[in-house]
Amino acid sequence: MKHLLDTATLSREDAIGILDIAEEMTLVSEREVKKLPVLRGRTVVNLFFEDSTRTRLSFEAAAKRLSADVLNFSAKGSSVSKGESLQDTIQTISAMGADAIVVRHSGAGTAHRLAHTGWIDVPVVNAGDGTHEHPTQALLDAFTLRRALAGVPASGPVAGGPRGQGLDGAKVAIVGDILHSRVARSNVHLLAGLGADVHLIAPPTLLPWGVEDWPVTVHFDFDSALSAEDFAAVMMLRVQHERMQESFFPNEREYARLWGLSAARLAKLPESTFIMHPGPMNRGFEISAAAADSPRALVLDQVENGVSVRMAVLYRLLTGQEETND
Amino acid sequence: MKHLLDTATLSREDAIGILDIAEEMTLVSEREVKKLPVLRGRTVVNLFFEDSTRTRLSFEAAAKRLSADVLNFSAKGSSVSKGESLQDTIQTISAMGADAIVVRHSGAGTAHRLAHTGWIDVPVVNAGDGTHEHPTQALLDAFTLRRALAGVPASGPVAGGPRGQGLDGAKVAIVGDILHSRVARSNVHLLAGLGADVHLIAPPTLLPWGVEDWPVTVHFDFDSALSAEDFAAVMMLRVQHERMQESFFPNEREYARLWGLSAARLAKLPESTFIMHPGPMNRGFEISAAAADSPRALVLDQVENGVSVRMAVLYRLLTGQEETND
Amino acid sequence: MKHLLDTATLSREDAIGILDIAEEMTLVSEREVKKLPVLRGRTVVNLFFEDSTRTRLSFEAAAKRLSADVLNFSAKGSSVSKGESLQDTIQTISAMGADAIVVRHSGAGTAHRLAHTGWIDVPVVNAGDGTHEHPTQALLDAFTLRRALAGVPASGPVAGGPRGQGLDGAKVAIVGDILHSRVARSNVHLLAGLGADVHLIAPPTLLPWGVEDWPVTVHFDFDSALSAEDFAAVMMLRVQHERMQESFFPNEREYARLWGLSAARLAKLPESTFIMHPGPMNRGFEISAAAADSPRALVLDQVENGVSVRMAVLYRLLTGQEETND
Repeated sequence: MKHLLDTATLSREDAIGILDIAEEMTLVSEREVKKLPVLRGRTVVNLFFEDSTRTRLSFEAAAKRLSADVLNFSAKGSSVSKGESLQDTIQTISAMGADAIVVRHSGAGTAHRLAHTGWIDVPVVNAGDGTHEHPTQALLDAFTLRRALAGVPASGPVAGGPRGQGLDGAKVAIVGDILHSRVARSNVHLLAGLGADVHLIAPPTLLPWGVEDWPVTVHFDFDSALSAEDFAAVMMLRVQHERMQESFFPNEREYARLWGLSAARLAKLPESTFIMHPGPMNRGFEISAAAADSPRALVLDQVENGVSVRMAVLYRLLTGQEETND
Repeated sequence: MKHLLDTATLSREDAIGILDIAEEMTLVSEREVKKLPVLRGRTVVNLFFEDSTRTRLSFEAAAKRLSADVLNFSAKGSSVSKGESLQDTIQTISAMGADAIVVRHSGAGTAHRLAHTGWIDVPVVNAGDGTHEHPTQALLDAFTLRRALAGVPASGPVAGGPRGQGLDGAKVAIVGDILHSRVARSNVHLLAGLGADVHLIAPPTLLPWGVEDWPVTVHFDFDSALSAEDFAAVMMLRVQHERMQESFFPNEREYARLWGLSAARLAKLPESTFIMHPGPMNRGFEISAAAADSPRALVLDQVENGVSVRMAVLYRLLTGQEETND
Repeated sequence: MKHLLDTATLSREDAIGILDIAEEMTLVSEREVKKLPVLRGRTVVNLFFEDSTRTRLSFEAAAKRLSADVLNFSAKGSSVSKGESLQDTIQTISAMGADAIVVRHSGAGTAHRLAHTGWIDVPVVNAGDGTHEHPTQALLDAFTLRRALAGVPASGPVAGGPRGQGLDGAKVAIVGDILHSRVARSNVHLLAGLGADVHLIAPPTLLPWGVEDWPVTVHFDFDSALSAEDFAAVMMLRVQHERMQESFFPNEREYARLWGLSAARLAKLPESTFIMHPGPMNRGFEISAAAADSPRALVLDQVENGVSVRMAVLYRLLTGQEETND
């Protein structure tokens, strides 16, 4: 495993390997050993062509906990805005001594292009490329769900999370604007690869062409889907307001009514169903405050685990090791 | 002491405790031990909803000298601008592993809200909330004044600053736009709590309602106040140009003439009077170049001490210790 | 050597001293000792009044590889935009504990002003001041050329670059918009000081007044210059589009035709001629893709060596040592 570009081509073995290293990273945090020296002297560059404070901070925290140095490159006000080509930008970053490059870009396929053109020779981590993929988000979702289903609290005195397992048979619903969501795309591939039974719940206008070839079950009505199935987790997607119109969707209020996880729908869910959201949440729109703040919500666990999962990804790519020696 | 939210509720004992730790932090810097390992592995997040390069850099320098990692979160271009709630932002930051959160926000009371809603469980440091308070600024002012009155040079070969003391009886004037100044508000509470005799010098339109209940003496004329009193220090406030009009103040030139520390007023001050300013200064407006560059000006000492005081605050909140073991 | 402000007054001895330390820094990187502890506890402040992501990142990487802490001060949104004077900004930065200040500013002479007014007492490194100078760029160009002429690969298993040498007799062409280029100005002084034979190739409207007093040979036609001379290196300058009109230059296409390093011109160069560019490149404008990606292009070596050269400059200024003890 040289890069982390997507979950579509990530093997089940590699995915479980990352989740297992992330378990160890969690142990580290919880045992008051807050910093591992394993990447001392290495430099991780966050190359963000799109703003994303949350994802950038999560990778920055992960790299620093492994003792790496972090350089943040934001495309705004940079040579990129002076017309520099992608090739020259990435080669320049690499020549400055980057040991890994975390890239976010609005163009689908950018991470692949950076990794496979021969321009550079360092690991590339896709932190979101257009509407294509966001693999670390899917990995942290899978990690969070695997722990929750095993009954491991997010922050306990001693962690003893599940190891070596997938999510076999876990029934997971992904709800909302699938069409524009790289989070959905990455989750579908990863969850299915880990053995989960993935369901998409969305209006036809917010589903992508070719969804019938995906390894999923599709529902066009939220309420009847919730009645018909016992979901282990319901994953609500953030709705990007600016995309409502281009999707021929009437308006936001209508969206919230049909596709939001309201307090009423929350009440109908089995007690065992977990609630997930990649954040940032639009409270009162795709998710009600009752759902967001419910004890069954894993939203903050997702954020917390995101750091451990990104530590695992950087560790794996930069040391080539599949386990820590700790 | 779990948070540092204001000086209004800060006990005299805690305030002096912070000043005393700051003395030790100064010793550290001066003895060429430029970095203390006490916060290694801890993460301090600067959560700035308002721009403030100076304050952010001072906290960043303080945290790094204690070997903490620093994550800078600027609200611009972040999920905040995508409509995320304050609760979700702060909980997300906390879930990423923040051990302390330094927050600046335009809304008065924001730091209190973050600390006392139960949203998070880590120390909050108020780095300025609207026109309410800016407690570390007041602490560094008190620290600087305590040292200056004790005759300790800001940067000497060996420091031996005062310990365990307040500012009993020290007569301090705060001059200018009290109404909009969180610096003034924090200084009034802290200085009075430390035993100083605080005087406010300002036009009635730039004084807040209820000032008659503050533990201060009010003057409406700068020159007659200077004639009547021997001030240990005169603290000039930065005037925010954009607030002149809403305060029914005629114009800037008039302000400078009536409320500026001109060369003429400087000449009338006793030789022992120190001059202070929280910065950034508007030279030629609320303070003349003669005053700003005078040997009695403590402006740069305030900046320098700001780092030591913020080290002390972070040390105290994150280790719970009242003294360094050094 | 207290500051690095320009190459015009940099002695040959100091210049070679920096290049020799940079050789050692390169060795460090290549021997897998990626981080030197020599500046631990020191703080380097990047004070950028103009955006320049590349240069800022290069200095940041250099400082971090020497274990220094880095504070980034961008003038945007800072007290500078609130009208603070340059004196107050720099004194504030210094008072926060800066051990060295790297400054970029649009005003020619700013670095000199900061260093020589007595405002501060720490080393100043000029990272570009208006159209005046950019000395670290010239040093990294000289370093790269010295290595290339000695046949040392940029990234080899063991480095054994040249030591103690200048560039005696090396014939170097600098091509393009000399008038607005601080890179050209710094290179002319440094390369001539190191014994190189410097040629400028440019239209009369893009040459500065007084160029006849510079230690250079001037050519007004690119093709005839290439026919007449065997250059060791051809250094193409970035053209700043916004300056074409004010230079009475017809248009960009015309510029590319007359002054660009096209594939055709590349083919006419001797095999031994190296191609240099300070970046960011305008591919297809002042440099063709064929030239930029040619094996003789040193563009990425320049970037890579930039970090080593900046490590050498910071090391020299902050430790006062002319050699590492390693």
